Amino acid sequence: MARPIKLGDEQIDTSLKSLDGWILKQAKLYRDFEFKDFSAAWGFMCRVALIAEKMDHHPEWFNVYNRVQITLNTHDAGGITELDFLLAQKINSLLAN
Amino acid sequence: MARPIKLGDEQIDTSLKSLDGWILKQAKLYRDFEFKDFSAAWGFMCRVALIAEKMDHHPEWFNVYNRVQITLNTHDAGGITELDFLLAQKINSLLAN
Repeated sequence: MARPIKLGDEQIDTSLKSLDGWILKQAKLYRDFEFKDFSAAWGFMCRVALIAEKMDHHPEWFNVYNRVQITLNTHDAGGITELDFLLAQKINSLLAN
Repeated sequence: MARPIKLGDEQIDTSLKSLDGWILKQAKLYRDFEFKDFSAAWGFMCRVALIAEKMDHHPEWFNVYNRVQITLNTHDAGGITELDFLLAQKINSLLAN
């Protein structure tokens, strides 16, 4: 895959409009998730981990009990890229199941 | 199990001396871990998750790629308890394998 290119502010704003639940936080994509309990949160994280590893694009994330906070950016590009939006979309699609 | 009791500073200092790698950070037990890659870090986290769920005592933790930062305290007791030291010991024992 070609090296992803850092997106401009306008591109980010436009893409965010069609990405449910995610916001811009400290120049990264951010969303928090709340589940019934740790088991549910962990099950979600396991599915995200498989997606991330397959994409070779990994989140920064924090968990405590039923809460998961995910932060996405592309370290190599020094900002947010299409890869981050793609991963965010894939994460969102898990919630629909 | 009886409700765990918040440990005093002296008890914490004494217990920390025999707990490899953990420090006191903002009144919680803290240790960071570095692995070869995400796969290795995630494998470790999966094992910790099973232990935590079995103990019904869960960490606050952060991961990015090959790094894992774990913070332990006992919310119900308002501080560090024996449960935190027990979980920390179990986590350390994973590293020996």
